[in-house]
Amino acid sequence: MRERAHSLKKSPLFDIINNMEFLFEILKKDDRSKARKGRLRTNHGIVNTPAFMPVGTNATVKAITNEELAEIGAEIILNNTYHLYLRPGTDIIGSFGGTHDFMNWHKPVLTDSGGFQVFSLSSLRKIREDGVEFRSHIDGTKHHFTPEKVIEIQETINSDIMMVLDICPPYPAPREEVEEAVRLSGQWAARALRARVKDNALFAIAQGGVFPDLREKAVTELSEMDFDGLALGGFSVGEPPDAMYESLQRLKDILPAGKPHYLMGIGTPLDILEAVECGIDMFDCVIPTRNGRNGMAFTSSGTLSLGNARHTDEHIPLDTGCSCRVCSSYSRAYIRHLLKAKEILGSRLMSYHNLFFFNSLMSRIRLSIEEGRFMEFKDDFIKCYTGGDNV
Amino acid sequence: MRERAHSLKKSPLFDIINNMEFLFEILKKDDRSKARKGRLRTNHGIVNTPAFMPVGTNATVKAITNEELAEIGAEIILNNTYHLYLRPGTDIIGSFGGTHDFMNWHKPVLTDSGGFQVFSLSSLRKIREDGVEFRSHIDGTKHHFTPEKVIEIQETINSDIMMVLDICPPYPAPREEVEEAVRLSGQWAARALRARVKDNALFAIAQGGVFPDLREKAVTELSEMDFDGLALGGFSVGEPPDAMYESLQRLKDILPAGKPHYLMGIGTPLDILEAVECGIDMFDCVIPTRNGRNGMAFTSSGTLSLGNARHTDEHIPLDTGCSCRVCSSYSRAYIRHLLKAKEILGSRLMSYHNLFFFNSLMSRIRLSIEEGRFMEFKDDFIKCYTGGDNV
Repeated sequence: MRERAHSLKKSPLFDIINNMEFLFEILKKDDRSKARKGRLRTNHGIVNTPAFMPVGTNATVKAITNEELAEIGAEIILNNTYHLYLRPGTDIIGSFGGTHDFMNWHKPVLTDSGGFQVFSLSSLRKIREDGVEFRSHIDGTKHHFTPEKVIEIQETINSDIMMVLDICPPYPAPREEVEEAVRLSGQWAARALRARVKDNALFAIAQGGVFPDLREKAVTELSEMDFDGLALGGFSVGEPPDAMYESLQRLKDILPAGKPHYLMGIGTPLDILEAVECGIDMFDCVIPTRNGRNGMAFTSSGTLSLGNARHTDEHIPLDTGCSCRVCSSYSRAYIRHLLKAKEILGSRLMSYHNLFFFNSLMSRIRLSIEEGRFMEFKDDFIKCYTGGDNV
Repeated sequence: MRERAHSLKKSPLFDIINNMEFLFEILKKDDRSKARKGRLRTNHGIVNTPAFMPVGTNATVKAITNEELAEIGAEIILNNTYHLYLRPGTDIIGSFGGTHDFMNWHKPVLTDSGGFQVFSLSSLRKIREDGVEFRSHIDGTKHHFTPEKVIEIQETINSDIMMVLDICPPYPAPREEVEEAVRLSGQWAARALRARVKDNALFAIAQGGVFPDLREKAVTELSEMDFDGLALGGFSVGEPPDAMYESLQRLKDILPAGKPHYLMGIGTPLDILEAVECGIDMFDCVIPTRNGRNGMAFTSSGTLSLGNARHTDEHIPLDTGCSCRVCSSYSRAYIRHLLKAKEILGSRLMSYHNLFFFNSLMSRIRLSIEEGRFMEFKDDFIKCYTGGDNV
């Protein structure tokens, strides 16, 4: 029963070549902004940055196969510690030697720590100095996460980039609560760092809500510790739309220059462009897949809603300028029909196209930085995206 | 807006080569049974028989793309007249010149007439001499199908094989009701034949429930008309499991020898083998996809239910003897996890494997007939399938 179903698919060389120390190289910096083009070297291969990481919470990017992810050009995906710990359970993934063999994805994986999910999904959570107690959103069973335990789980999942357990206060939250979250998250980060026994990379998460001084304190403190990268957490939790942009403008000069910067859970194409300008290297967000399943297609001239009756008999593809497999083969009329009939293929085609769009946006961002024209690219993209007749 | 999104994918030669008259050729007959290996020539290419037709009710085989169907080896799929007439509507499909361009599947398509669906899905149906009035199961609107109208819709859908409108009584139904259904279905069949104006093939449907003489009457009458093929409808509607086998044994000698025989809505691998033995050439059934989505995998040693906890940590594929893409890449443990988490990828992988299994069964049946060893193959298959440790 322990025979590997897919052991034949991986060459032994694969592990040897890829099992290298985590490294972040900056290949090109933009003159007119903080944007930079770089490269992450992980245990399972290279990730070019700025990168968008498709979200595969339950060890699957919803509706999409790994072959399709590779075809789209995804170089790294997310898994979620909270979800995988609860189901199928760390022991099952451990029996496969980690998530790569479990889900048959042999490129880099980043695991979110579960901090955000404990606060957004589970009930009856109790934060204590040593960790957080919570009830499973699946079956109500009681569990306890500590910074150390979350590292142990992620080392079993064997993600290439692990995240520390953090406390993500809701919005709005009183200053005292956010201050306490920053204090305790900082202590937990230090404990997570000491708990690591394997060579998987580990990123810290700076919280601080919409309080500039708390954000700065968190970033400064965590930058001084020996993490492989720094993430900004707790954005897009309900705060006013401009609050994040203002925060990024304030933080851009104090982010640790030589380390990768990851903006968690963000965002729209416009968010990504603003954040890249402030030096962000990594993104993840469910909108290409979740919004896709709900009928929203991302195109170079803005989003379009397939629920809109005007698409009923349109023979053109989702995005006339897109070269993806979906846009080469299927009409808006057909995809709208699939979505109206709640057919799985509708979710598949929308998710595929949207992930292709996001990945293509990142490629174009990287190229524009490489060629020293990121700000022009950003302006042109926004002009087309917000001025398009789809909006 | 009328530009074809996918016109580039079809060579003009494609239509010329394939636009040929419908033809059924019997290539080999089995000595020990009524089994025969044959070939259908349709407007969109060749179908080798005995054939299993994946069900694509809403112009999509649930969870599966056309590329995947081609990879699996499917040569023909089903669409449903009732569903497509109601949504997206005949005009939309007509604007694409038919379902092939609409759904981007350029191989043969058979459309069920909608008779069965009017009786199983819609409410307030009223059968009259000229046709049937019913309410849409989607929005309750009132509609009227006549034999002529259903041909017109199917000619717009441009399916390669059209089916006549028939009356499918429920089980159990009194003899008088079944007798009346056979009488009226016969009249409707004759009207459908006269209504056809294009060269799409047209099959009749013999009803008769579990009354041997009514079945024989229907088969005999319809065989004398100028149809391209004969279907047996109204099986698997709740009658005892052996009733269909008994019916097939009675009918096998009176089925029109030179025409293709289609057993509608059937069935399990065992049903298919029994029916091929009685001279059936074509099958369709939702079980590979529907049961797949519900966690049932078909394997050479029987079905297995991924819901069963014993698969929780099994690293082996669904079917250790299967060469499909799913069995080469994914473990039972992973697929079970996906199904438990209600992930779309679970439905995709199960549907793919099961369709591959059914298609592979049909290939092996055809080869066994070709090589004059169908009955041996049947016995061996059943022995393995029913004696396997999966059962």
